Amino acid sequence: MSRFLNACYQGLEAYVPGEQPTDMAYIKLNTNESPFPPSDAVIAAVTKEETEKLRLYPDPECGALRDALAESFHTSRENIFVSNGSDDILNFAFMAFAGLGGKAVFPSITYGFYKVFSQLHGIDYETISLNKDFTISPEDYYHKNALVVIANPNAPTGLMLSTEQVEAIVKNNPDNVVLIDEAYIDFGGTSCAPLVSKYDNLLVVQTFSKSRSLAGARLGFAVGNKDLIADLEKIKYSTNPYSINRLSLLAGAAAVNSPAYYKEKCGEIVKVREFAKAELKKQGFFVTDSAANFLFVKKRGVSGEYIYRKLREKGILVRHFNTPEIADFNRITVGTKEQMNALIEALKTIEKESQVEQ
Amino acid sequence: MSRFLNACYQGLEAYVPGEQPTDMAYIKLNTNESPFPPSDAVIAAVTKEETEKLRLYPDPECGALRDALAESFHTSRENIFVSNGSDDILNFAFMAFAGLGGKAVFPSITYGFYKVFSQLHGIDYETISLNKDFTISPEDYYHKNALVVIANPNAPTGLMLSTEQVEAIVKNNPDNVVLIDEAYIDFGGTSCAPLVSKYDNLLVVQTFSKSRSLAGARLGFAVGNKDLIADLEKIKYSTNPYSINRLSLLAGAAAVNSPAYYKEKCGEIVKVREFAKAELKKQGFFVTDSAANFLFVKKRGVSGEYIYRKLREKGILVRHFNTPEIADFNRITVGTKEQMNALIEALKTIEKESQVEQ
Repeated sequence: MSRFLNACYQGLEAYVPGEQPTDMAYIKLNTNESPFPPSDAVIAAVTKEETEKLRLYPDPECGALRDALAESFHTSRENIFVSNGSDDILNFAFMAFAGLGGKAVFPSITYGFYKVFSQLHGIDYETISLNKDFTISPEDYYHKNALVVIANPNAPTGLMLSTEQVEAIVKNNPDNVVLIDEAYIDFGGTSCAPLVSKYDNLLVVQTFSKSRSLAGARLGFAVGNKDLIADLEKIKYSTNPYSINRLSLLAGAAAVNSPAYYKEKCGEIVKVREFAKAELKKQGFFVTDSAANFLFVKKRGVSGEYIYRKLREKGILVRHFNTPEIADFNRITVGTKEQMNALIEALKTIEKESQVEQ
Repeated sequence: MSRFLNACYQGLEAYVPGEQPTDMAYIKLNTNESPFPPSDAVIAAVTKEETEKLRLYPDPECGALRDALAESFHTSRENIFVSNGSDDILNFAFMAFAGLGGKAVFPSITYGFYKVFSQLHGIDYETISLNKDFTISPEDYYHKNALVVIANPNAPTGLMLSTEQVEAIVKNNPDNVVLIDEAYIDFGGTSCAPLVSKYDNLLVVQTFSKSRSLAGARLGFAVGNKDLIADLEKIKYSTNPYSINRLSLLAGAAAVNSPAYYKEKCGEIVKVREFAKAELKKQGFFVTDSAANFLFVKKRGVSGEYIYRKLREKGILVRHFNTPEIADFNRITVGTKEQMNALIEALKTIEKESQVEQ
């Protein structure tokens, strides 16, 4: 820290993303990337000619990409906001709809970045405990008079609220924004984006990083009432108007126009998830009913950190959180069937080794 | 604006970027893009294989790009910060080194975004008038006890402070950060980045958008004392840790490793600038001594807005600012010699047409 840093950021604890080690080739099951490449249309969109055009600024309105998304969500361009990854959008939404002196409410166990955005912008935040089984009780989020933020499915539990439960939360917060973070919605869930036409206080955020195999392109989008979108545009144009590079704009539009490919790949991930879940249960793991592209697992009597560390030694990366309430768990991205078989075998070996050690 | 927008942003006036019309093919001399494509190494870096890897997150530390920049600036990775365009970096710097309740100082005529960043973050700002000839008096910026921000060369005037003048400002502000925005430094100027090793309060910001022909890739960087860089990293990791996409990281590193190509192209732009400047003077224009890749021009008795509008009708875009002090002027990007010839001919035609009208 320098001697010049503004006092309000001196105590800030930044978000810690999943590790990206380069010391060896790992089976990477720690940051919920897709095991499949982007669609052929995406690959075809990034040409030599387009790379030469990098000398020109991108379209700040992101017209083509927003139009493609609008068509896919049966809405209009003015209901779509796009930016440099969904974190970028969440950051803007925390500013716009809570902001300095405002308040935000989210579950005690959820995406760790919500707390960071709150601290960054001087937002007072309240966390609401999950139920013992990690489910969320919608009623806990009624009449909050604060920005309500819910990841659905929730991370890292993978558990899902129904559209009816989300709608009840939106209805019972008529004077504040409800932000539903649907980063993991495409692995068997149902998006609540269609509710946007009924409620002016609902903002639905999605990402191209998981189901659309574009984590490296940095693309996220939001669907909402046009006035909410205009607010986000105002913040974007006051920080970084050209926030998405030309090639990602092209790749994103091509991905939106490849629905069959991505539906098939998400279907495969769901199948592998259920297969891996059954196998882990056979090995005595507790596994939540995840609707996402990850599993949230623990084994009675074995620390989560131990399993994380042993897997890492064997070349398999999973995500372990040091948060006390979930320290027994690991979050494991659903990869290919081959990767999950390797994981399952590694866990069997770790089990045997630990018995020898005892 | 929605009924939910935080009060602190309701009066905010967002930055208005240069127009990017799509109604016809213009000669685009309005956003200071390079008329030349990126280097062959950049084109070669964006392969099908790398596009397939977009399924993976980018390196959040941006190690390869920072190392390439560090080598080119004879410094270390920890002295280099990179992010999603230099606007992104300026935004972080305004937060970190002025911030809520803090203060910033910059010239009254300069890059219009400095005022927007200040308003966005609740920063009290002071603007200092330029001299009548648009030059900056360094002494005006001594002992400010506030974040001092100077574009060098300044925009849209193109006028330049010497390294000695910058150093005097840095020396005479021992307890605050001095940010030198060198977006246009490579068109004949000398960077003050080497001073970073002597002063812990100097932050130098540059961009890949102008001299490196990568406006569409969104890449900027800062050179500074490692503690200043750590502060910027903290803000980045609290908003959007993966702020640069994979392909731009590759393109950026390839650009840094093509110094000969870019030196040659910048040389060409400087030559064409001086040619166009002489031609415009022959036509009776007042032209500042720009050290940038644009000219700042006016003609006595003709409104800047009139020339802007007439050029636009003829398919040539230049940038006109409505700011009263510079309403007589237009900022004209230096393009290829052919483009500048087209501009010069168009201006001659406009002159004739206006005489007929009178």
